[in-house]
Amino acid sequence: MLFAMSFTRQPLILFVAYPGTGLLDLTGPQTAFWAAQRHMDVAGRDLLPYEGQTVSVQGGPVRTEEGVVIETLPMSMFDERSIDTVMVPAAAGIAGMLDGLGPTVDWIRQASRRARRTASVCAGAFLLAEAGLLDGRRAATHWALCDLLAQRFPAVTVDRDAVFVRQAHIWTSASVTAGIDLTLALVEEDCGRAVAMDLARDLAVRMQRPIK
Amino acid sequence: MLFAMSFTRQPLILFVAYPGTGLLDLTGPQTAFWAAQRHMDVAGRDLLPYEGQTVSVQGGPVRTEEGVVIETLPMSMFDERSIDTVMVPAAAGIAGMLDGLGPTVDWIRQASRRARRTASVCAGAFLLAEAGLLDGRRAATHWALCDLLAQRFPAVTVDRDAVFVRQAHIWTSASVTAGIDLTLALVEEDCGRAVAMDLARDLAVRMQRPIK
Repeated sequence: MLFAMSFTRQPLILFVAYPGTGLLDLTGPQTAFWAAQRHMDVAGRDLLPYEGQTVSVQGGPVRTEEGVVIETLPMSMFDERSIDTVMVPAAAGIAGMLDGLGPTVDWIRQASRRARRTASVCAGAFLLAEAGLLDGRRAATHWALCDLLAQRFPAVTVDRDAVFVRQAHIWTSASVTAGIDLTLALVEEDCGRAVAMDLARDLAVRMQRPIK
Repeated sequence: MLFAMSFTRQPLILFVAYPGTGLLDLTGPQTAFWAAQRHMDVAGRDLLPYEGQTVSVQGGPVRTEEGVVIETLPMSMFDERSIDTVMVPAAAGIAGMLDGLGPTVDWIRQASRRARRTASVCAGAFLLAEAGLLDGRRAATHWALCDLLAQRFPAVTVDRDAVFVRQAHIWTSASVTAGIDLTLALVEEDCGRAVAMDLARDLAVRMQRPIK
C-alpha cells in the first residue's frame, strides 16, 4: 500500500546541531531529504521538496566532533514557523555531555510539541530521553550504548535489535548510518514507497542495513 | 593476511570542497577516517589517528549542494606538508560544472603527484578524469553517470559493476554511500582488517554494499 502525502508548502526539517555533534548523523539525513526531490516526479502526486535548515541554540558556526565546522541558524528564527520534522543527531560522548546541553534539550522538548514528528539518530536518543520524549516508549540507539540508555533512563524500553523504532510521532534509530535508513522511512511515509526506493537506489543504500 | 602500516606522524587527509559539493560525499569519508581512531588500539600496532582537513581553493565557507555551509582552509596552507590522501567528492551536476572548477582540478592534479593516494567519491571521478588522473585506467562512478563519464573521457575505462576501483594509487567509488565503503578499504589498507571490521560494525556499514 502506498501512502502519499501532498504538502501545500515545503515541509520544514530542522536539523539540531550542538558543539560536538556527530557529523554524519546530521549530513546523512540532510542528504537523503535533499536528494528525495530528485525522485518526487511520480505521476499523480503533488509533492514539494523538503526545506532543510541546520539550527543551534545561538546560531553561527558549530564544530562537530570530527572537527568539521558547519554554519547554523539560531533556533529562535523558526519560532513562528510550523515544523514538519525535528532531527536530533548523536555525539559519541553524548552521555557525558547532557548536563551542558540544557538549552538544546529544552528546545527539543518544546519544538517536538509543535512538530509533526521528532527523530533521533544513533546516540541522539539520549537527548530525546533527557527531554522526556521517550518515557514509556520503545527506542533504538547505537548497539554499544543500549545498556547505558536503559540504565540512565529506566522509563525507556530499549530495543536492541531494531534499525529504527517508531512510536507515534517519535522515531529513533540505531547506528549513525541507520539515520539514513530512518530518513528513507520518513520519505516513504511522506512520498510513498516508489520515491523512497528510487532514493535508496540513488544513494545506493540497501533498505535496510543490519545494526551491527 | 593483515597489512599494518605504522605512521610516524598523523597521516594528513585532505578533503576537497568546492561550491556545490555533495555533502555526504565529504562527510561520510570524514566520519569514517575520524572514527577509525576509536579502533586503533589493536595489540602490536603503532597507529596514529588520521588528521583530516577540509580544503578549498580560497578557504572560508563553502556552500554544499544541499545548502549546508561548511568551513574550509585554503589549499595553499598545505603546500609544504606531505599529503597522505586526497579525497575528492562529487556534485550531482558535476558534468556541467567542470569548466568553472579549473583551479580545483589543477590543484587535484598537482596534489595527487605528492600524495600517497588520491580517491574520488561518486561523480568525483569526473574531477579526477578532468585532471587526467584516470587516463588509461579503470574507474567507478555513480551508476547513472557511467555513460556520461565514458563519453566525455574516452581514455577512461568505466567499471559499471564495482563499488570501488583501485588502480595503483588512484581509487574511485560508485555511489555517495560507496565513499564510506571506499574509506573502509583505505583504513583496512593502513590499519589492517580487524580495525576496518570494528569500524564497519561501529558505523553499522555492511562491508560492502551493492552499487544500486
